[in-house]
Amino acid sequence: MEIDIDTIGEEIGLFEAIRTTRAIRRIKPDPVPPELIRKVCEAGTFAPSGGNRQPWFFIAVTDADKRAHIAKLYRQTFSRYIEPARKAAEDPAYQDAKRRNMNAAIWLAEHLHEVPVHLFVAGWTRRGRPQSQALLPAIQNILLACRAVGLGASLTTSHGAHQREIDDMLGLSEETPSIALIPIGWPIGKYGKPPRRSVDECLFFERYQERKADQDLPPPQ
Amino acid sequence: MEIDIDTIGEEIGLFEAIRTTRAIRRIKPDPVPPELIRKVCEAGTFAPSGGNRQPWFFIAVTDADKRAHIAKLYRQTFSRYIEPARKAAEDPAYQDAKRRNMNAAIWLAEHLHEVPVHLFVAGWTRRGRPQSQALLPAIQNILLACRAVGLGASLTTSHGAHQREIDDMLGLSEETPSIALIPIGWPIGKYGKPPRRSVDECLFFERYQERKADQDLPPPQ
Repeated sequence: MEIDIDTIGEEIGLFEAIRTTRAIRRIKPDPVPPELIRKVCEAGTFAPSGGNRQPWFFIAVTDADKRAHIAKLYRQTFSRYIEPARKAAEDPAYQDAKRRNMNAAIWLAEHLHEVPVHLFVAGWTRRGRPQSQALLPAIQNILLACRAVGLGASLTTSHGAHQREIDDMLGLSEETPSIALIPIGWPIGKYGKPPRRSVDECLFFERYQERKADQDLPPPQ
Repeated sequence: MEIDIDTIGEEIGLFEAIRTTRAIRRIKPDPVPPELIRKVCEAGTFAPSGGNRQPWFFIAVTDADKRAHIAKLYRQTFSRYIEPARKAAEDPAYQDAKRRNMNAAIWLAEHLHEVPVHLFVAGWTRRGRPQSQALLPAIQNILLACRAVGLGASLTTSHGAHQREIDDMLGLSEETPSIALIPIGWPIGKYGKPPRRSVDECLFFERYQERKADQDLPPPQ
C-alpha cells in the first residue's frame, strides 16, 4: 500500500473525527508503516501537560515474540475480570451495546498477539507516582489521529497487572512506568458514532441539577 | 456576532487543530453563546471511558458573582505556588518559553473573574475516588473543539484547594466532585504551534533507550 505520510488523514475534520472515533478492537494482522506510528505519536506530543513537562514516552512493539508474550500476560489478567461479565451477559436484559463491547474486548484478548503494533504509553513519575492524568490527553490525541489516518485503536490498561514484567522487557525503569497499551492496526470493522448519552444530560448552566434515577444516569461504582 | 452552530469550526482539519491547540489564557470578557458551550461539551461526550460509563458532568458558570467568588478562591491557591516561580524567573537563565507561560498564568489568575465561562468538569467517583483519568480524554476533546470554533481555553486544577466550597456552590455532591476548571472565552492572542519536544525524542521501537541527561529531557519531579 502506498502511503503519503504528509497528506494521509489531513482531510478529515476535527469534529467529524471526534464524533466517529470509537474503540476499534477487531484488527487485521497486516503490518503498519513505522512512519504512520510516528505520525499518530507526534499528534500525542501536542497534548497539554502541567508546566509543559511533556512526561510521555511511546514504545511501539512490533516484534512477534514480544507481542506473543504481552498477549499471554494480557489474557491472564483479562480472563479474571471477563468471567463475571460473561455471566452477566447471559441475562437477556443485558444491554446489546454492552454485549457487543464485551465480545469485541474478548476478540481483542484472543487476537492481541496478531495485532501488528502494541503501542505502550509511559511517562515520568512525579513525586514518586505515575502521572497517568498527564498522559491521557496525549493518548486521546493518538486515538483521534489513528481514526484520521484509517487505523483502528483502543485504550487498554489490562497489561497493568504484569506492568513491571512488561516494562522490564520494554527497557522502562520504575521512573518511567507504562500506564496504557494501545493495540493499533488496520480495522476489520467500520468507524461510527459511539453510543453516548446526549450532552443535554451532562451539561448544566450555573448549577448541577440532581437527576432522578429513572433518567438512566450511569450508577456510581 | 452571528454564529451558525451547525457549521462553525467544522472546516478545520483534525491534525491542524491538534497541532495548533495551545493553552490560551488571555481571554476577552465578551460573552459566549450557550449553544457554543454546548457544542464543545458535546465533543467531550464522544471521549472513551472504561466500560463506556461516561462519568462526566459539565457545569458552565457564567453568573458574574459566582465567577468573582471562584476567581477569589483561585487566586488564593495560585499565589501560593506562583511566588517560587516568580523568584526562579528572575534568573536570566530561566527559559523564555517558561517565563511567557508563567506570565500568561498570572494574567489568567488576575482576570479570571472577567473570563465569561468557567467550565467545570466533574464526574462520578468510582470505589470512592474521583475518576480523573476517565475525564481527561473528554477534556482534551473540549480543548480541541474550543480551538476549532475559535474559542480560547486552558486546563486548570488550581480550584482544587477550594474544591468542596466551589462544588457546594455548583450543587455537586461528594459523589460527583469537580476535577478541572476550563476558563473559556474569545482569545486575545493567537493560536499557534505549542513548544514541544520532537516526537523522535519520545518514540521508540521495541525498546526504550535510556537517553543522556544532556539531551534536554524534562527531569523527573
